[in-house]
Amino acid sequence: MTAPFTPLVADLPATTPFVGPEAQERARGRPFRARLGANESVFGPAPAAVAAMAEAAADGWMYGDPETHALRAAVAAEAGVPVASVTVGEGIDGLLGVALRLFVEPGAAVVTSLGAYPTFAYHAAGLGARLLRVPYRDDREDLDALAATAQAEGARVVYLSNPDNPMGTWWTGEAVAAFRAALPEGCVLFLDEAYREFAPEEAQAPVAADDTGVIRFRTFSKAHGLAGLRVGCAFAAPQVAAAFDKLRNHFGVNRVAQAGALAALAASDHLAAVVAKVAAARERLTAIASDNGLAAIPSAANFVAIDCGRDGAFARRVLAEVVARDVFIRMPGAAPLDRCIRVSAGTEADMALFAEVLPKALAAARA
Amino acid sequence: MTAPFTPLVADLPATTPFVGPEAQERARGRPFRARLGANESVFGPAPAAVAAMAEAAADGWMYGDPETHALRAAVAAEAGVPVASVTVGEGIDGLLGVALRLFVEPGAAVVTSLGAYPTFAYHAAGLGARLLRVPYRDDREDLDALAATAQAEGARVVYLSNPDNPMGTWWTGEAVAAFRAALPEGCVLFLDEAYREFAPEEAQAPVAADDTGVIRFRTFSKAHGLAGLRVGCAFAAPQVAAAFDKLRNHFGVNRVAQAGALAALAASDHLAAVVAKVAAARERLTAIASDNGLAAIPSAANFVAIDCGRDGAFARRVLAEVVARDVFIRMPGAAPLDRCIRVSAGTEADMALFAEVLPKALAAARA
Repeated sequence: MTAPFTPLVADLPATTPFVGPEAQERARGRPFRARLGANESVFGPAPAAVAAMAEAAADGWMYGDPETHALRAAVAAEAGVPVASVTVGEGIDGLLGVALRLFVEPGAAVVTSLGAYPTFAYHAAGLGARLLRVPYRDDREDLDALAATAQAEGARVVYLSNPDNPMGTWWTGEAVAAFRAALPEGCVLFLDEAYREFAPEEAQAPVAADDTGVIRFRTFSKAHGLAGLRVGCAFAAPQVAAAFDKLRNHFGVNRVAQAGALAALAASDHLAAVVAKVAAARERLTAIASDNGLAAIPSAANFVAIDCGRDGAFARRVLAEVVARDVFIRMPGAAPLDRCIRVSAGTEADMALFAEVLPKALAAARA
Repeated sequence: MTAPFTPLVADLPATTPFVGPEAQERARGRPFRARLGANESVFGPAPAAVAAMAEAAADGWMYGDPETHALRAAVAAEAGVPVASVTVGEGIDGLLGVALRLFVEPGAAVVTSLGAYPTFAYHAAGLGARLLRVPYRDDREDLDALAATAQAEGARVVYLSNPDNPMGTWWTGEAVAAFRAALPEGCVLFLDEAYREFAPEEAQAPVAADDTGVIRFRTFSKAHGLAGLRVGCAFAAPQVAAAFDKLRNHFGVNRVAQAGALAALAASDHLAAVVAKVAAARERLTAIASDNGLAAIPSAANFVAIDCGRDGAFARRVLAEVVARDVFIRMPGAAPLDRCIRVSAGTEADMALFAEVLPKALAAARA
């Protein structure tokens, strides 16, 4: 008996955006020694956040506040935006899925970059969008080409991450504002700022709080070290933020995450320390690359893309050899980005292990 | 500037399935003394689950396993179904949203009962489904009328909760199996078993593990006391369970929830104790109703619907007077069910407070 799926679902490929490290560990039969593939914060959540979550666990029998009232207020105050502009969801991944449904019908043009964050494309494909992928230029998302494609195709949504994942490159806030102004009427910019805390001040984009043409996505998964808790937020014009309430899973942001995120937001010392450690780890990764005759792409995120100097097939061999030596990393999925491997910022021990493993992996890949 | 929403989103009303008790507390300016409105388990999660969650909080910097491998295996083993039949999601609410997208296009007929769980209808409306609501009969979901409506309208999905929420009534497993057999080809039964642990053995429905026409929904929110963690599972034919992977938020089930649910599943003594306490609380609620000259609807869930003996307007007054006395309860939203208030099983202190409050609320409502 065949299940009566919609034609769209029946035609969707059975792909997932990412295979988790746990699945790789199960397949390998042994754990990784360093977990540097998912741009998580190995420096952990703030101790105050851990304490708040442990306390909230005993209250886990209660649904979380569906309005995430306290967290929205704290996020709004920290960012200097009205509370009515903030919606909270199950990480940026969850928010992207809902946000796309606000604007995208089957066949609608949606623009992203070739090799950019796969989960955006995954959600767009799940809605039957017509996905247009613009090549990177000089390892940056190509703002001019993205805007031109949006204009030519009448796009409903354009995705941009700033800083970029997987390359770590960034545009100035001014450039992003000019990009938004160059988009066609009726097109909404999804501005993914997951890595903003690691970026220089000049990369922060000024966007009008009442602009219905931009949604900014932020997360507690990266600098705040709460990837496993699933909490992110979106800033949008109040009428757009309110529209999430028409579709979102109202009780979806779990109680423990709300408590952890609230405590994390208050722990500014921890955040500053993490940002400093990430900056040091980026320098270390750049030096390790250099020691092996490779170039690192300058990064404003908590990871570094390292150019392996040849094609995608070679970089995939390097990645496989690094992974075989028990260090979990990932790499961009599309040429020409896929000449790189991508390594997250780690502890000093993580970085020392990577420094030990990389030359062996390169030698094996060249053999 | 108007946001370029899809026509469907632009037309959706700005309603939410439920207002949370926290929002009511903010509006009232003071906390509830008893929280008996959301069918949460006031008896809490198992101590082992709390400990597992507290431990997992420190590991919160890592994304949870997107395959929820350990939890799926444990759930499958406990239920005696193949692992390939199990998918895990962000509570039944999250799973319902994804499951509907597998089968429903705009305009598709979807059948539920008038006054049944609002979040199912909320998600169906968000997809532009044509919602058909069949009246309850003798306070039970009317299987014959649901099947007849599905046949007449060529429904793609029919929703049934067993035991039922908000009335607490139930059908035998045999009756549910006969109902499934009476549905038209190409129609999928969404069988919500959120309250199954509280129900008698005869209410457990036997369903073939390879039947593509049924999805069963279960949760850790009720008997396991993990409502705030957001974890539920669905049992379906392997090809249907696999299809969730085409649309779901792969990293959506948080790491702390996975740890808590796994520990909760192993804590069978706690579960048995909770079920016993719920049974005692149901008896107590029935007695309280009787002491006030009211009839309680026999319940197989962790709540009791109490017939206030008059119309919906009267029951709404009773509810308001109970709430004004700091006891959070809810009530069915549609006639004739709305002659009732719905009270969750609570601790002895909760039940004593409700016993004290109800006669005053009734007197005030009658005045």
